[in-house]
Amino acid sequence: MTQSLGGQESRRAPDSAPGLSGRRLRSLLFAPASRPDLLAKLPRSGPDGVVIDLEDAVAPAAKPEARPHAVAAARDLRRAHPELVILLRVNAVSTEWFADDIAEAAVAELSGVVVPKLDSIEALEEVGNRLAASGVGLPVVAGIETVAGVAYASEVLRPPVEAAYFGAEDYVLDLGGVRTPENAEVHYARSKVAVAARLAGVLAVDQVVVALRDQGRFTADASQGRAMGYRGKLCIHPAQVPWANSVFSPSPEEIERARRMIEVYERAKAEGSGALAFEGQMVDEPLARQARAVLGSVE
Amino acid sequence: MTQSLGGQESRRAPDSAPGLSGRRLRSLLFAPASRPDLLAKLPRSGPDGVVIDLEDAVAPAAKPEARPHAVAAARDLRRAHPELVILLRVNAVSTEWFADDIAEAAVAELSGVVVPKLDSIEALEEVGNRLAASGVGLPVVAGIETVAGVAYASEVLRPPVEAAYFGAEDYVLDLGGVRTPENAEVHYARSKVAVAARLAGVLAVDQVVVALRDQGRFTADASQGRAMGYRGKLCIHPAQVPWANSVFSPSPEEIERARRMIEVYERAKAEGSGALAFEGQMVDEPLARQARAVLGSVE
Amino acid sequence: MTQSLGGQESRRAPDSAPGLSGRRLRSLLFAPASRPDLLAKLPRSGPDGVVIDLEDAVAPAAKPEARPHAVAAARDLRRAHPELVILLRVNAVSTEWFADDIAEAAVAELSGVVVPKLDSIEALEEVGNRLAASGVGLPVVAGIETVAGVAYASEVLRPPVEAAYFGAEDYVLDLGGVRTPENAEVHYARSKVAVAARLAGVLAVDQVVVALRDQGRFTADASQGRAMGYRGKLCIHPAQVPWANSVFSPSPEEIERARRMIEVYERAKAEGSGALAFEGQMVDEPLARQARAVLGSVE
Repeated sequence: MTQSLGGQESRRAPDSAPGLSGRRLRSLLFAPASRPDLLAKLPRSGPDGVVIDLEDAVAPAAKPEARPHAVAAARDLRRAHPELVILLRVNAVSTEWFADDIAEAAVAELSGVVVPKLDSIEALEEVGNRLAASGVGLPVVAGIETVAGVAYASEVLRPPVEAAYFGAEDYVLDLGGVRTPENAEVHYARSKVAVAARLAGVLAVDQVVVALRDQGRFTADASQGRAMGYRGKLCIHPAQVPWANSVFSPSPEEIERARRMIEVYERAKAEGSGALAFEGQMVDEPLARQARAVLGSVE
Repeated sequence: MTQSLGGQESRRAPDSAPGLSGRRLRSLLFAPASRPDLLAKLPRSGPDGVVIDLEDAVAPAAKPEARPHAVAAARDLRRAHPELVILLRVNAVSTEWFADDIAEAAVAELSGVVVPKLDSIEALEEVGNRLAASGVGLPVVAGIETVAGVAYASEVLRPPVEAAYFGAEDYVLDLGGVRTPENAEVHYARSKVAVAARLAGVLAVDQVVVALRDQGRFTADASQGRAMGYRGKLCIHPAQVPWANSVFSPSPEEIERARRMIEVYERAKAEGSGALAFEGQMVDEPLARQARAVLGSVE
Repeated sequence: MTQSLGGQESRRAPDSAPGLSGRRLRSLLFAPASRPDLLAKLPRSGPDGVVIDLEDAVAPAAKPEARPHAVAAARDLRRAHPELVILLRVNAVSTEWFADDIAEAAVAELSGVVVPKLDSIEALEEVGNRLAASGVGLPVVAGIETVAGVAYASEVLRPPVEAAYFGAEDYVLDLGGVRTPENAEVHYARSKVAVAARLAGVLAVDQVVVALRDQGRFTADASQGRAMGYRGKLCIHPAQVPWANSVFSPSPEEIERARRMIEVYERAKAEGSGALAFEGQMVDEPLARQARAVLGSVE
């Protein structure tokens, strides 16, 4: 069963499940497409979404043979977890593997495609064209992880992009800087991406923490990201998933506030009113989507 | 007596008092328009400016009846304090109250109008049109306190805007983030607004500190804001006013430097010279205005 | 002997030494053009580049007589140090001294010209025209040290600009802020300049540390700058030069990685391939230049 997501630009039925920007993505757990054993275990730690990775985690020579594993894993995961967000990370647009990766996405039971190192309008158009050519209307998760991606985030976070992650490691490598646990060197970029995502109505997922088993550091990093507007965390180890889910779960006060906001907003929309003041704040569709995502996390 | 401010775009006489950007606004104290008792007491703590608030502090149902209170309070305050900066905060452009709020501003003895959540060129134009329709040439203080406002600050900080504040609480709410005392989550936005304000020759006023009676925290927050280029602080409690005035008062060295700069600048202007090097720095009109504001604070 | 630099826009032979962006500039030591005694001693502390300063360090009245000193010093330095990066800092474009300063640059044995407070497309064009009129194709080091310079960094960092420095002191003065050792007030601007430089393929040099003899503070500040993508440091005292050289020298791992990257990149280029994935990162020409700069520092 293919899960419909119904993004604005999607060819799938709009009466189906909400697009990615309306889903909760507190945790996005990655595993290499070349490792069927790990792919099968992905849901165990309770992530909101899983990513079958054809990019960084798979060596160039192994990419062709990894694709059928990805398709099989997506099918098995979908069968066992009809509601799970299942994503395929393809290789970057400029690589020789991109076109074949996307072609594979067309036959898999996916919730969307993750496109890493997306950093130009041309690349975004290529993604759209390639998806259209494959006859799929999948939403895209954009990897913003180069200097150009950060600089042009506002241009790149456009449909079919419905979610985005900030990739600190690749960004700093591209910048020629040095990664530190304090994150000062990524503060500007990480802020800029969160702002661009909010403006575009795109759900923002925060950077990886490479110190795999350090709960204190993960929680501090995730809390920082949440304060900056991120809604979830890339996870590269199952142990990180419950930590991410905990940090990015709304408090009872936030849930109650979201409930009130949606109620008022829906009533105003039904009465034909556009902009809407709610408890001193103007509510627009992106904000309402955020609120629905908060509620989605407890329903 | 109506106080003339003579901004560039103002219809009032240009030979009158300087516009807001040439005033000192170390402290801007707010009180709800619905509370005549508090409005009357606003000047007691010695703020550089007072804001009669029709927005956040007044419930929707109470807004119509709050307007006459605002007008009466402005008249009384002006009579007793001819030199005080007296501002009226209207509701945001997109609200149903905006037009009537502005109409009220036309009859009050105001130094300017505060427009909250200003975040698009269209809204700025609407402000200009509405002021023109009311026949008043009042300068505007723009509230930059949404993600769009921060993103488009350079476009929004245009005449008749002569001052702006950064509203951290609303900004973070709009971003979907979390406010923290360390301010890391607003550092990008707070910096961007200060830069845009300086470029536009607009006076920048820093965020509220919600911990009403914590002098240490207020002073630290204000010092941070001052280092980033802000010239004053929004105050929501009279106790905060002397703290703000103290942090944002220039040191004797700064006063002496401003005096020398203005002297050299005026002489150069009289001699027909445009750009001017002063102690290794190029002096332009915005910088000269800053210097005059420094001097204004001790005259 | 005039050192050719062969930037893209240079009139000099392209088969000569690499432009500034391909050089290592871990340390750029300044001395006033009016002090021949200091100029002669510049190379002693081992800086990667020296700057003969006609701007801040020379009083207005002394500028005309400082120019011949600058020319003589450049000639002597070049004779003794054929490979040294020797730069002349002229006065800002808008000053009365700029044109004569550039004319002097044409006769000196320079590696490039430092233009302070560069902050508009018009000024950049004026620099290009003035250099062309003087018949020299010298690369330019742009001083980004005003609010406008930071705001328009992407527009200003264009050929013939091959390197840039961020000037924190002048920037904060222009902003109307306050300098602090923690650098929070420049974090946004310092980040933005590093990003714009990387995008433009321009080498970025970090801010001055005014506490002349405080090694701990210099090293912390330089490490911060390096993490943010800067490749070197402005130095205003010979003691700072070895500290800068140490912080900005690549580690053995970085050298080894650069070597592998260049090898793969050159092979791909020889085979006619454009974009190139190297260890999970897309390699383009600016990144390859960075890698060459790393290697240049040990050859």
